[in-house]
Amino acid sequence: MRSGPPRQNRNPELPLPAAPGASQEEIRRQNLGAVLRHVHVHGPTSRAELTARLGLNRSTIGALAADLTAAGLVTEEAPTTARRAGRPSLVVSPRADRVHAHTLSIEADRLRAARIGLGGRILDLREAARPPGMTASDAVGPLAALVRDMDRAAPADALLVGGAVAVVDTTRDADGRIRIGGADEALPAALRAEFPTGPGFVTGDLADIAALAEHVRGVATGVDDLVYLHGDLGVSAGIISGGRLVLGHRGRSGKVGHMVVNPDGLPCGCGSRGCWETEIGEAALLRHAGREADGPEAVGEILRAAADGEPTARRAVDRVADWLGFGVANLVNVVNPNIVVFGGSLRELYLAGADAVHRRLGAMVLPPCQEHVQLRAAALGCEAALIGAAELAFDTLLADPLQIAATG
Amino acid sequence: MRSGPPRQNRNPELPLPAAPGASQEEIRRQNLGAVLRHVHVHGPTSRAELTARLGLNRSTIGALAADLTAAGLVTEEAPTTARRAGRPSLVVSPRADRVHAHTLSIEADRLRAARIGLGGRILDLREAARPPGMTASDAVGPLAALVRDMDRAAPADALLVGGAVAVVDTTRDADGRIRIGGADEALPAALRAEFPTGPGFVTGDLADIAALAEHVRGVATGVDDLVYLHGDLGVSAGIISGGRLVLGHRGRSGKVGHMVVNPDGLPCGCGSRGCWETEIGEAALLRHAGREADGPEAVGEILRAAADGEPTARRAVDRVADWLGFGVANLVNVVNPNIVVFGGSLRELYLAGADAVHRRLGAMVLPPCQEHVQLRAAALGCEAALIGAAELAFDTLLADPLQIAATG
Repeated sequence: MRSGPPRQNRNPELPLPAAPGASQEEIRRQNLGAVLRHVHVHGPTSRAELTARLGLNRSTIGALAADLTAAGLVTEEAPTTARRAGRPSLVVSPRADRVHAHTLSIEADRLRAARIGLGGRILDLREAARPPGMTASDAVGPLAALVRDMDRAAPADALLVGGAVAVVDTTRDADGRIRIGGADEALPAALRAEFPTGPGFVTGDLADIAALAEHVRGVATGVDDLVYLHGDLGVSAGIISGGRLVLGHRGRSGKVGHMVVNPDGLPCGCGSRGCWETEIGEAALLRHAGREADGPEAVGEILRAAADGEPTARRAVDRVADWLGFGVANLVNVVNPNIVVFGGSLRELYLAGADAVHRRLGAMVLPPCQEHVQLRAAALGCEAALIGAAELAFDTLLADPLQIAATG
Repeated sequence: MRSGPPRQNRNPELPLPAAPGASQEEIRRQNLGAVLRHVHVHGPTSRAELTARLGLNRSTIGALAADLTAAGLVTEEAPTTARRAGRPSLVVSPRADRVHAHTLSIEADRLRAARIGLGGRILDLREAARPPGMTASDAVGPLAALVRDMDRAAPADALLVGGAVAVVDTTRDADGRIRIGGADEALPAALRAEFPTGPGFVTGDLADIAALAEHVRGVATGVDDLVYLHGDLGVSAGIISGGRLVLGHRGRSGKVGHMVVNPDGLPCGCGSRGCWETEIGEAALLRHAGREADGPEAVGEILRAAADGEPTARRAVDRVADWLGFGVANLVNVVNPNIVVFGGSLRELYLAGADAVHRRLGAMVLPPCQEHVQLRAAALGCEAALIGAAELAFDTLLADPLQIAATG
């Protein structure tokens, strides 16, 4: 579509819109948020550049930066190297050391908690095992213990402004079987019980949140249409279209591992047959390499052997990568992304079998969708979910910086 | 995701946001747009209800309505039946008879042009054949002739405020073969050449635009996550997520007819094999019914025979409907819509084979996605594209009503 409702095409980097009849106070709040968001996303920025980027005048930027400095949210310093003559423009930097969020990830086999500073820097990171059968709400207790440990090590003036939890959607049952199930209904209550004070937590799907991380700080920076694929026990996707997450009716989009790609394929844990997961999961790679008995620890060996040209491993990788490309091609035809990002365990599979993936896309993707699509390995590695969760956690601060700074 | 950036969750019915530091003039413009959009979407509305719905005060609504009346965009009248004592609140109605857009649809085998009044009413509709091999840009000449005919029949005070073209993405070559190709590169220039004056045209994919129509005025009103499936020569989709069209990187999303569903299936015109189109298109139904020789005119007979319980027709319909459900199930797992709408030729197929479609969804859709998904036949029929295009065409007017009214 060449054009459409202008409200759909707003640049999310510009200051937040004011409601009609907005008071001066509301406009100031939104402008403060815009300045803080800019340095949060782009890092230290001079007043002069903020003036140019945000379309506000110089004295307004100066006043806003002074307010944010007084609230302890940013620092302002003269640049270390002045590039030209005249009085240098002060550089506004987020106070990553002080202003932070708690982010949690509930992954297939582990739990992690991080303190993430404004600007997206990981200040602290703790990890515990997630035993088979542990639900997301059961995981909150051990996660809270990790958070308490981190908080004891935090500086005295640390300011907690938000929290977010990324929950993976495929887990292991008590008997070790793979099961679909992300955040359970008891999760919000468990979070409130373990964290009775403080700003609270928002919850999201791990693949969606990792997609957001790659979009804001990773390999898809500045790209508004992307599909992020996450592999672990299962395969799921975070889809961003027009710069916004495609969340679905109840936030349950992206269950791409359960697209049926092979109607004659193997039974899947979900009750269907020939799901994408059954063709691109670790079990498929082990099966094609004749190493089913060896378990998941052999996956790395097979990928390395394929890279070294060992024929059985090479064939196994190419076969699984061909199915990887098959599903990606279908997704590209459906949502027409500019970039497809391979994350989690799919990152290594993609790197090992990129040629086979590209061949499939060449055969199956329509020319108009194929023209501009790029395939990329994820940049943020296994920290993507923790970093992405911080983007959600900081949102309340960025909407009203001084309110949070005063009460946080 | 239970929560997220608030900017993603704004109710599109509320007045358009003002930029920071917006002037009184800008705020007024946006409020005028909000009032006009409300009566455009919801029809005649009393001042009292506008006051309640838009969160503006009574005297503001009164002044805005008076301005829109003076500009000839709305009328204000006392309600025909006053429901309670006291002075009745004036009812504001869009001037559908006067304020209109030109919408064009370039379909597989025909061209249509309509005059659509503010409020979404079809005022006039003309049609011409689209011969095989005619490109979208070639179609502009015959469409312009239809538009000229309509304009001659329009009232003298008619006010043209916008135009939009919906272009189908699967067409017929000069030799009758089916080919993928929507708007070609020459289309914008052809539109400018044939319509050198006036507000110009925006262009979009027909399935996207029909999805918008069903979302604003059809079976998916108030539903923010939907997949609209359009069948004609091919199969394509308009996907709406969070109330916004998923357009893709170059507006080329929704090529769902070319998801491969059957890796061992028949060759497709796109060069791939086993595409969804090869299993749910008219040719598949004719093949399964043993009536390949009869051509597309037999499709209706087969659907009717199946409804009457004729076994061969019933089996053919169920087999094709099973594949219809297969692809829908994959889409539901990927984008988690609240509603899937069947439009174009898929409407009749869905109605004839709904049981088989539902069985497939039951077998393939994950429980979390299945819980809330509803399947629906399209409500707007073959007018959907013309009605949806008007939503795009009116957008400039709704963004700045008095500007357009003054220059239109």
